[in-house]
Amino acid sequence: MSSPNSSDQSADQRPGRGISRRALFGAVGVGVVAAGAGAAAGRLTAPDTASSHADVVEFRGAHQAGIVTPAQDRMHFVAFDVTTDSRDELVALLQKWTEMAARMTAGQEAAADGALGAGQYKPPSDTGEALDLDACQLTLTIGFGPSLFVKDGKDRFGIADKRPAVLVDLPKFTGDALDPARSGGDICIQACANDPQVAVHAVRNLARVGFGTVAVRWSQLGFGRTSSTSTSQTTPRNLFGFKDGTRNIKAEEDTAVDRFVWVDPADDQAWMGGGSYLVARRIRMLIESWDRTVLHEQERVIGRAKGTGAPLGQRDEFDELDLDSRGPHGPLVDRDAHVRLASKEELGGIEILRRGYNFTDGSDGFGHLDAGLFFIAYCRDPQRQFVPMQQTLAHGDAMNEYIKHVGSAVFAVPPGVEGDAFWGSTLFGGSLALRDEAEK
Amino acid sequence: MSSPNSSDQSADQRPGRGISRRALFGAVGVGVVAAGAGAAAGRLTAPDTASSHADVVEFRGAHQAGIVTPAQDRMHFVAFDVTTDSRDELVALLQKWTEMAARMTAGQEAAADGALGAGQYKPPSDTGEALDLDACQLTLTIGFGPSLFVKDGKDRFGIADKRPAVLVDLPKFTGDALDPARSGGDICIQACANDPQVAVHAVRNLARVGFGTVAVRWSQLGFGRTSSTSTSQTTPRNLFGFKDGTRNIKAEEDTAVDRFVWVDPADDQAWMGGGSYLVARRIRMLIESWDRTVLHEQERVIGRAKGTGAPLGQRDEFDELDLDSRGPHGPLVDRDAHVRLASKEELGGIEILRRGYNFTDGSDGFGHLDAGLFFIAYCRDPQRQFVPMQQTLAHGDAMNEYIKHVGSAVFAVPPGVEGDAFWGSTLFGGSLALRDEAEK
Repeated sequence: MSSPNSSDQSADQRPGRGISRRALFGAVGVGVVAAGAGAAAGRLTAPDTASSHADVVEFRGAHQAGIVTPAQDRMHFVAFDVTTDSRDELVALLQKWTEMAARMTAGQEAAADGALGAGQYKPPSDTGEALDLDACQLTLTIGFGPSLFVKDGKDRFGIADKRPAVLVDLPKFTGDALDPARSGGDICIQACANDPQVAVHAVRNLARVGFGTVAVRWSQLGFGRTSSTSTSQTTPRNLFGFKDGTRNIKAEEDTAVDRFVWVDPADDQAWMGGGSYLVARRIRMLIESWDRTVLHEQERVIGRAKGTGAPLGQRDEFDELDLDSRGPHGPLVDRDAHVRLASKEELGGIEILRRGYNFTDGSDGFGHLDAGLFFIAYCRDPQRQFVPMQQTLAHGDAMNEYIKHVGSAVFAVPPGVEGDAFWGSTLFGGSLALRDEAEK
Repeated sequence: MSSPNSSDQSADQRPGRGISRRALFGAVGVGVVAAGAGAAAGRLTAPDTASSHADVVEFRGAHQAGIVTPAQDRMHFVAFDVTTDSRDELVALLQKWTEMAARMTAGQEAAADGALGAGQYKPPSDTGEALDLDACQLTLTIGFGPSLFVKDGKDRFGIADKRPAVLVDLPKFTGDALDPARSGGDICIQACANDPQVAVHAVRNLARVGFGTVAVRWSQLGFGRTSSTSTSQTTPRNLFGFKDGTRNIKAEEDTAVDRFVWVDPADDQAWMGGGSYLVARRIRMLIESWDRTVLHEQERVIGRAKGTGAPLGQRDEFDELDLDSRGPHGPLVDRDAHVRLASKEELGGIEILRRGYNFTDGSDGFGHLDAGLFFIAYCRDPQRQFVPMQQTLAHGDAMNEYIKHVGSAVFAVPPGVEGDAFWGSTLFGGSLALRDEAEK
């Protein structure tokens, strides 16, 4: 693997571990050598899509991966309800998940004995559908919803006093048409990878071992990323056909990332230091209406040229968005254009890190495709970043004629795991080592 | 493009056409040169997934593409209801679709004026979300359902007498739990590509221009192919974690393809010569039950080893399936093992060409993922191939405990288009040239 996970390399010394999935069965042994070449050539022929199947994204670190990681091409997002009232069971699952996530993001099977090693008379410890696939830059990112802390007035897991003040259900925005079956959740996991089968395999195996402790509340596949989160990436297009995320915060912009993405423990719960907040919105696009709209109106609604992605009145995608520019008929960027209302200039400096995906989920039952944008944003304070931004957009955005928000959720994303920490150990206490001690 | 479409090359000489999407905006000019390198390197690092984004699959030919074409990685399948009673409107749409399909499979925009060329005050002729993407081996394959010929006893389009005798709704099989909203349809289009956004873009644009003539009845995304249709491909895994399609008919097996896939007009309607029949079945996998089943039982149910894919009692995936082999406790391949009951040996020599895809569509509402296999098979006679095969499986397959058939459809897939033929011209008569004449 071209960027091996250092923590996992030590794990690789232990017997029975460290064998990547593809080394087991008929995989091509020269994969490691070819990775660089494949990635480079892939970028030329199909930017951001064919590259980096062999690459591993480091799982452990001060922050969770999957936030400022250059956005992978495919996504499977899942929200769980916790079905136990036992704190111990919940913590045990989070510990188990952490170990599985470290393995799977390194391109290994979900557990050391894997699809075949548990023996003929046990259920396999890995479901097997990714056996022949590389890590594909898989990242797994966990978040905790408001209902994990208090549900129906009940402090189920003794963590009510640890609930961040800003972690409350989002307010109802003008025009919201939310489906409860696609909203909320106690825990979320965002799986991103360059092969969808790798992302689906990861979610499926986490759900598998969670049986009895958690149940899938909703899940969403995204087939194409709609934002760049790195200056190394080209800007992709959403299902309106426009480049999306040109002005997004990029991983390389340290100051902006520190200011808008990572939680400073000085102004939040201590356990959230280095974490972030994830806002998910399932935004149905009324593509049939959009597709019958003239180009001029489409560009007016967005505020950019459809081809180049340049701000109206400019030439290139990354030309400055000049909100004061005027033509013979008024502002070049309309007063209710999406780019204007979503801009930091209009929002008193607010920015968020967007990391969404295009989706198409069959038919809507009325002769149209059920298609749109699964919006994901990371921010350090949803109440002061996402909420005012969405209030502005919900009231004034010209785009509202062509979209409908049908799902919504917010999650506290804890910091990354280092050493023998686990997902949520800053919240629940303990460590993987302590668990191993107790089991002896 | 590395394997340009010859018919479209002549089209490329006409002004305003032949500009591939990516040539328009900021695409990397060396894509053509790098295509071979990217494909080759991609195959080493991630077999069958990273390869061939730049490649074009020939649209025109004696047979439609997308049947024996090496199965691409991603799929969007759509079934339409025809909402007009006008034969002329239907034929006009099929003609328009043919021209769009020829363009899009060549990596071009849906129409010559495209996303930007129709002018500021017209709706764009292409929705734009694939502007920066290559052809990605896109194939578009059309089929006609029984209800196109006769619906509610009515011969809507004057083609009732052209209905093939074998094109009737499939019988109800034991255990079927079909959802009418995911079954049937007057017309289907199978879009396969190595980038899902390319497949979705194609279906979306065909649906767009069909407004008023057709309506989306159902659609299905498949994220990973579950069959090889070429000896050049490795066998992928389904969501049971097993290699699927080892014994599938391969494109290179001319005799088998002629015998089992292509319609001989001597024993069918003349207009179907060189065509085929498509059977689609949405097969929900009860993955939670499966995942709690011991490895021995999983392998007994399938009849193959999970790791290698070898038939039980053998060593390698492609070792002979010996149905008579016996061990100390009886047959090595169980009497109700899936591979036995689906084998040509058990079915009096019957074979079909499978071309299915794994799917995951959110949650089932009961705490589980809604996941499974979208089964697609091509055969020259569904009544004598698919029906007896499925009757055998529905009655006896050990796998039935872990699956549920929830959607079903059958379509007559007309032959390929050559010269100025269009999708369905052998059925409806006429040609693109005649249409152009009439428009003058």
